[in-house]
Amino acid sequence: MSPGQDRRYEFPTPRTRPSRVVVTRPRPILDQGGHPPKRTVGDQVEISVDVIRDGHEVMRAEARVRGPGQRTWSTIEMAHLDAGSLGVRWGTSFTPDRPGEWIWNVRAWADRLGSWREELRRKSDAGQADLASELAEGAVLLAECAERARGADAGTIDEAAETLRSTSASAGDGVDGDLVALALDPDLAAVCDRHPDRSLAGTLPSAAKVDVDPELARFGAWYELFPRSWGGLNGVRRRLPALAELGFDVIYLPPISPIGLTKRKGPNNSLTAGPQDPGSPWAIGDASGGHDAVHPDLGTVADLEALVADARALGLEIALDLAVQCSADHPWLTDHPEWFSHRPDGTLKYAENPPKRYEDIYNVDFDCEDWAGLWAALRDVTTAWVQRGVRVFRVDNPHTKPLAFWQWLIAGVRAEHPEVIFLAEAFTYRALQQELGRIGFSQGYTYFTWKQSAAELREYVEELAGGEREMFRPNNFVNTPGMLTGQLRDGGPDTFEIRLILAGTLAAS
Amino acid sequence: MSPGQDRRYEFPTPRTRPSRVVVTRPRPILDQGGHPPKRTVGDQVEISVDVIRDGHEVMRAEARVRGPGQRTWSTIEMAHLDAGSLGVRWGTSFTPDRPGEWIWNVRAWADRLGSWREELRRKSDAGQADLASELAEGAVLLAECAERARGADAGTIDEAAETLRSTSASAGDGVDGDLVALALDPDLAAVCDRHPDRSLAGTLPSAAKVDVDPELARFGAWYELFPRSWGGLNGVRRRLPALAELGFDVIYLPPISPIGLTKRKGPNNSLTAGPQDPGSPWAIGDASGGHDAVHPDLGTVADLEALVADARALGLEIALDLAVQCSADHPWLTDHPEWFSHRPDGTLKYAENPPKRYEDIYNVDFDCEDWAGLWAALRDVTTAWVQRGVRVFRVDNPHTKPLAFWQWLIAGVRAEHPEVIFLAEAFTYRALQQELGRIGFSQGYTYFTWKQSAAELREYVEELAGGEREMFRPNNFVNTPGMLTGQLRDGGPDTFEIRLILAGTLAAS
Repeated sequence: MSPGQDRRYEFPTPRTRPSRVVVTRPRPILDQGGHPPKRTVGDQVEISVDVIRDGHEVMRAEARVRGPGQRTWSTIEMAHLDAGSLGVRWGTSFTPDRPGEWIWNVRAWADRLGSWREELRRKSDAGQADLASELAEGAVLLAECAERARGADAGTIDEAAETLRSTSASAGDGVDGDLVALALDPDLAAVCDRHPDRSLAGTLPSAAKVDVDPELARFGAWYELFPRSWGGLNGVRRRLPALAELGFDVIYLPPISPIGLTKRKGPNNSLTAGPQDPGSPWAIGDASGGHDAVHPDLGTVADLEALVADARALGLEIALDLAVQCSADHPWLTDHPEWFSHRPDGTLKYAENPPKRYEDIYNVDFDCEDWAGLWAALRDVTTAWVQRGVRVFRVDNPHTKPLAFWQWLIAGVRAEHPEVIFLAEAFTYRALQQELGRIGFSQGYTYFTWKQSAAELREYVEELAGGEREMFRPNNFVNTPGMLTGQLRDGGPDTFEIRLILAGTLAAS
Repeated sequence: MSPGQDRRYEFPTPRTRPSRVVVTRPRPILDQGGHPPKRTVGDQVEISVDVIRDGHEVMRAEARVRGPGQRTWSTIEMAHLDAGSLGVRWGTSFTPDRPGEWIWNVRAWADRLGSWREELRRKSDAGQADLASELAEGAVLLAECAERARGADAGTIDEAAETLRSTSASAGDGVDGDLVALALDPDLAAVCDRHPDRSLAGTLPSAAKVDVDPELARFGAWYELFPRSWGGLNGVRRRLPALAELGFDVIYLPPISPIGLTKRKGPNNSLTAGPQDPGSPWAIGDASGGHDAVHPDLGTVADLEALVADARALGLEIALDLAVQCSADHPWLTDHPEWFSHRPDGTLKYAENPPKRYEDIYNVDFDCEDWAGLWAALRDVTTAWVQRGVRVFRVDNPHTKPLAFWQWLIAGVRAEHPEVIFLAEAFTYRALQQELGRIGFSQGYTYFTWKQSAAELREYVEELAGGEREMFRPNNFVNTPGMLTGQLRDGGPDTFEIRLILAGTLAAS
């Protein structure tokens, strides 16, 4: 390269003055800020950042926190977390009092008055004779501070400024010990600290978020029952006081919607059902209705609403099952055949997980052209149940539906009802279980049921406890219908007791 | 809450279909993507991401890489990093061949043909009798693939599709082993793999970046000299072959600009200079010019250009000193008094770091109203030297000027000349040293000079080597003018030899 021959080049200055204060590396944070870490109502949320500025200024920092629905920020003073004033980590904490998305940021600035005091102290301690210039500078800073203050504080600060200004101007070359003492007076400093100049403060490039669930998302005892075995929804309703008495928090009902007749399954997965066989509740929908209807054998929508209300009065929540698939008789199959997968010959593909076949179930096709119509229909099903009072959903097999769909659905539901809890029934590989938590599921099923020896259990529980707290909350539901381990089938009452105690003590749900 | 009384609520579906494939957690990454990790030309840059999709599809992923100035992406196939197909970590590497900002992203998709082959294999292995429907589905997928292909590949795939389509339609209920073998043929799979359907691919939410410096930023031997002691710039020029012979890579010159006369310092920091005393080169500027001028005693701008050119021909780079402060006689003090800090009485404040005073130096005030004018002037000084061929800058005390200023300056200079190297002379606390690296400095001074015992050195070097590689490259410059440790002052030649060997072996600069 021949020097001097480059064309001259310029690049524009920023349009607004960037702060000299860098606020960075917020904690807690998940996925580089892509997803909010999880907490529950009442948790003490410890937050911290690095605050870095050039030079040797005395710094101050405060957190600003805003809960869901709040229009204004709450301000919390932050403190150095490291020993010594050269530490750059600042922290504080807040305690969310309601579920939803909590937002926080930090405002940090160089404390010009504090820095001036610090410099004055150093020079005075070093025996510097001529401090008139420093005292005059302080008078200017104090006068500016007085303008920011109100009432008595303004008067106090103004008086100190005037004393420094008038006396230092006439002090000549001698150190006036009284003036230095006034400048460094801790009471004056405390008054000034109430009126900082934040005009050159720095903040995080973007606010940090915390996803706050109700406490029930972290801690609760679940009871599963098939309403058919208890006399329908009203039968369950009569049993509520007894269940509350036992200390349960959530009553989970498998799907309560109408069940398809076509290819209905009989006992033990047989392909032919007798006239009295109810079929699998997961084969959802018949001519009378789909996902937002109640099976006539079990009751009515009004019965469900009454059940939810009675349960809540007893401190219980009713959890419904959200299972996206349809029976052959679901209204969507005739109204929206475009939402389902077809074979090349045009016939519908039933669900399968080779070698298992679910002949009574058809999966929707999330890759179809009208994906937005399908998403909207599933949204309407979910919000219909939320409108009827349901606040807990156990989601069937979420790991075979798009992550982006769940992220959208859960965020949308919780924007209006942040107290809603979604439990993922996802028996899949670990990274996908975690991802479901990251994108919004409050809880996830675990492999607890399959861990049987002490060594297996220890290893698994340690794994769950380690480092995943912020994205995945385990729910050690003792069993899932349709899967029965040898230990549970043959173990007898002792095994059940042991596993109940283990489930209850190894996780909070 | 009384159920059923909520108002009905909806939330809109996304405007475009989100991909089912989540690509996330890119490495390397720094500060949650806020700053690019550092590499040098020729490094093998290992990159990786998590690829997660619902379901059990066979996945494929490719990295897309773009160097500075490139308009098109290079594509590199990625591979599973974990054992087993359920691993979600995918990786590959690339080797940047020029300095500047390298950008990379990942495109990952469900391989429908691969998934179909996998399912067919499972069903066939399980002895499933009727595979006609599966083979017909494969025929459709292959025909689609043939449309994406060109030339011979298109013919090969189309032929296979036609065979599957026509034969499976007439095959009835029997398994046709030949057809399954054709469907699973590895050669056919390899041809198909060349024409994937990426239409539903997922990517990182935003591209990842790597800041690539020239190799000299990582590895080089520096030689410092005062041109005044060597007969000016032309004297230095005559010494270049000998310095190149010694194996040096960088010749660093302290400031070569005119030196102020007012309050000029004498020997050993004395406040009165004799008529022959040159003053401190860091008291920059006099009536003849400021930061972009050459001291008449040392030569001319043309001499500097010739020096740089001769040096480069010998494999050497000339490093200049970038020191923002001004002497009392710098043109900026009269042209732009608003750029400097003033005392309340209107006089200028000289630089100090109590109890040290630099009476011959005035610092600019980055908090002044015309900060943008000041930034632009400093930009013009820097690009002037770059235009004259200088590619290495040792920046004086950057830690007392705004981080945002350096970030802007370095990015702007390197956008045009990515080969330019900035070394931070920042003797400050560790977090600030690191931050200077994060925002763009290629190298930083270390506390090597002050670490003297074996234990001190070991601790410090281990600290430098541990986990900071991506943000901070140490330059163990053996000494800095104006600071002399007892060991260097009194140690004699042996000490210098020891420290030279230590400096050369404990860091690459």
